[in-house]
Amino acid sequence: MSDASNGLVVWPRLVTLEGGEGAGKSTVLAALRDALLATGAEVVSSREPGGTPLAERIRELLLGTSTDDGGHEAPAADTELLLMFAARAQHVRQTILPALERGAWVLSDRFTDASYAYQGAARGLDGGFIADLERRVVGIVPGLTLLLDVPVAVGLQRARGRGPADRIEGEHDDFFESVRAGYLKRAAAEPRRFHVIDASQPAAEVATQALEAMHAYLRTVR
Amino acid sequence: MSDASNGLVVWPRLVTLEGGEGAGKSTVLAALRDALLATGAEVVSSREPGGTPLAERIRELLLGTSTDDGGHEAPAADTELLLMFAARAQHVRQTILPALERGAWVLSDRFTDASYAYQGAARGLDGGFIADLERRVVGIVPGLTLLLDVPVAVGLQRARGRGPADRIEGEHDDFFESVRAGYLKRAAAEPRRFHVIDASQPAAEVATQALEAMHAYLRTVR
Ligand SMILES: Nc1ncnc2c1ncn2[C@@H]1O[C@H](COP(=O)(O)OP(=O)(O)O)[C@@H](O)[C@H]1O
Ligand SMILES: Nc1ncnc2c1ncn2[C@@H]1O[C@H](COP(=O)(O)OP(=O)(O)O)[C@@H](O)[C@H]1O
Ligand SMILES: [Mg+2]
Ligand SMILES: [Mg+2]
Repeated sequence: MSDASNGLVVWPRLVTLEGGEGAGKSTVLAALRDALLATGAEVVSSREPGGTPLAERIRELLLGTSTDDGGHEAPAADTELLLMFAARAQHVRQTILPALERGAWVLSDRFTDASYAYQGAARGLDGGFIADLERRVVGIVPGLTLLLDVPVAVGLQRARGRGPADRIEGEHDDFFESVRAGYLKRAAAEPRRFHVIDASQPAAEVATQALEAMHAYLRTVR
Repeated sequence: MSDASNGLVVWPRLVTLEGGEGAGKSTVLAALRDALLATGAEVVSSREPGGTPLAERIRELLLGTSTDDGGHEAPAADTELLLMFAARAQHVRQTILPALERGAWVLSDRFTDASYAYQGAARGLDGGFIADLERRVVGIVPGLTLLLDVPVAVGLQRARGRGPADRIEGEHDDFFESVRAGYLKRAAAEPRRFHVIDASQPAAEVATQALEAMHAYLRTVR
């Protein structure tokens, strides 16, 4: 690991997948996992919000998908942000860091970049506050982030094929346009960490490009 | 309302009860509520963590009292802090501010001071970070805070009479000594807002002193 200039610790074996709904993150994550397993590595696959039993319970509160009670109101924007970082703090301490410290690879379907895109760019919360939370309770940053970029309408159509929309999937198109722009802005600001893939291509082509990016990355880290 | 020097807005009709487990907060809150109702005021009684349906769900995650599933691990200290402020952000927006804005009194069994005492003094988290969260997502401060101060052993014995301990009630005595010291330090730093009551006295005497403090306070705010 190494220290980035912003005080965050870079963990080369932490690789994250980012992108809007239906971009293909889960699909690509499975391909990367299989390729890493084939090298004999230990691989921990995870997702956000989630990644521990408590964080999965927080996810239910965020997405309004709990099945066990009479329901509750939607979180206010600040509440959403703090719940996301509460889940992330738990995920980092309980799942991600123990795995990285024993030498495993960790593949996460979303991580801190998603808060800059969703709670920052799309909900309009202050990026400086998000950066404070990142420094205070996350402290680590991935070595490689694959951003699967897809036009909003294409992604939503794919995601809607999966079943009923959760609370965030039910947002307006403008919201998702802001998410997409927020991700692209972060990728432009950190070109060494981010690798952007045109995810409107057929799934096989997206997976091929993701695997190429990861193999190129592996040559730089070992 | 008025602006305090730290950028927080003071709401005179927000009154909070603070103190350790079994100090008598719930008991005193009921007496204050009845006295305010007798003046013809609208009174909203609430508690933290909690005060909205979503915040009550967050409370279950914090205290480990959910009855609906196979359980989950305890939150890490940072996770606990963010869950507390997530619940508080929701409580302020959804319940407290709407009530204050229509002229009601709000009595809350615990509020932000509890995070300085429990997550700050007792868990050892940075008070500067707690103050950032207070400014960013709470933004308001009570006009009057009654601190019910009681020796740890006395409070715990009372609380244990109520039923099985939740996750926080199950902490060690040292933890609660730090909570008590943390509260007394905050009271000493803000003597105008805080009124400290010796809550080891009989319940009737504690209630009498709390009512006297509130009546003296009422003469200053209207
Ligand atoms: N490049 C692609 N072209 C067409 N469909 C895709 C592509 N990638 C994924 N899909 C399909 O779209 C849906 C959403 O993909 P998924 O991997 O779950 O996206 P995400 O995890 O980013 O929300 C799935 O049904 C998946 O099979
Ligand atoms: N001053 C007091 N002396 C003795 N018992 C008390 C006193 N105040 C409250 N109690 C009792 O102690 C228990 C805890 O009081 P409660 O108001 O629930 O405390 P808290 O809300 O601060 O945890 C209750 O059974 C209550 O009846
Ligand atoms: Mg997915
Ligand atoms: Mg009580």
